[in-house]
Amino acid sequence: MPTDRPPSQATGRLRHRILGVDPGSRNTGYGVIDTDGQRSVQIASGCIRVGSHPWPERLGLIFDRVSALVDEHQPHEMAVEQLIFARDPTAALKIGQARGAILCAGLKGGVTVHEYSPKSVKLAVVGSGGAEKSQVQHMVRILLTLDREPGEDEADALAIALCHAHSMGIPQRKRAAASWRDFRP
Amino acid sequence: MPTDRPPSQATGRLRHRILGVDPGSRNTGYGVIDTDGQRSVQIASGCIRVGSHPWPERLGLIFDRVSALVDEHQPHEMAVEQLIFARDPTAALKIGQARGAILCAGLKGGVTVHEYSPKSVKLAVVGSGGAEKSQVQHMVRILLTLDREPGEDEADALAIALCHAHSMGIPQRKRAAASWRDFRP
Repeated sequence: MPTDRPPSQATGRLRHRILGVDPGSRNTGYGVIDTDGQRSVQIASGCIRVGSHPWPERLGLIFDRVSALVDEHQPHEMAVEQLIFARDPTAALKIGQARGAILCAGLKGGVTVHEYSPKSVKLAVVGSGGAEKSQVQHMVRILLTLDREPGEDEADALAIALCHAHSMGIPQRKRAAASWRDFRP
Repeated sequence: MPTDRPPSQATGRLRHRILGVDPGSRNTGYGVIDTDGQRSVQIASGCIRVGSHPWPERLGLIFDRVSALVDEHQPHEMAVEQLIFARDPTAALKIGQARGAILCAGLKGGVTVHEYSPKSVKLAVVGSGGAEKSQVQHMVRILLTLDREPGEDEADALAIALCHAHSMGIPQRKRAAASWRDFRP
């Protein structure tokens, strides 16, 4: 269930808009944030679910949906998780195709694309490169003061956007470190 | 070096236009043929070389070039090699992304996309699923009466297009079997 807020709710100070995307061949998480590098607010987030559609139409749907997000939210930059596979070439090929569709949608929308490893994303929002998914969800909720825990793919996408925001200015996780210490998954 | 002939040179009988694409993260072969399922002529073929460009811009270039081919030649269908990797996940991820860009370009151009395994492509043009690249190049030259041997990626793309043409009607390889027997690689 997407939880979108209109861009007009972003404060004037947070002038930098980032679209974070967590690629998947079935579920692709997305998260749009406005940020000044220190403080960030969520503008839109959700999950593009294409698992019930056949290949290769699935790729066209992903491309369309990401293109629509770029058109609607006009992000300055796009941040996408860098995938590192060690074992499964079939999964790598599938997710690679989804990733190709996502990156093309961003590039065709004139958005600069940045890539971050899963480890650096977790490090940026949780403070540990080996953090669990539940920890990422919890910290994303705190950092963006969301009124509910985001879904896994949605949280990952918002975390990727926050990771890019972090790379622009003061690490948000420093501010959030106290909150994190209170969390028991 | 692309060897393009204007679409007007296609005979009136060969009403079905196919764009064959052989995806690669560095070199992507392409081949456009007109066919009636029995007889085919080459309309355009060549290789999109993006190896000197950085990721992810490379994907944007592949998408642009394939989109331009679709716009220029208005194929009825697109045929793309189905990739099956057994060993290398990193290569699978890279080529998967290139493939995602190619399929999106076709789908966005309103072209139906078909996929064929490397084995079925070789079987269609050479008559053996385990054929060498040089055999594919030779048979593509004969089947399309080209005045030169096409490059490997170009020949593969034309072979994929011929494989799809073959699936529409009488196998071209039956007519070409005599020529093939004379070939010693």
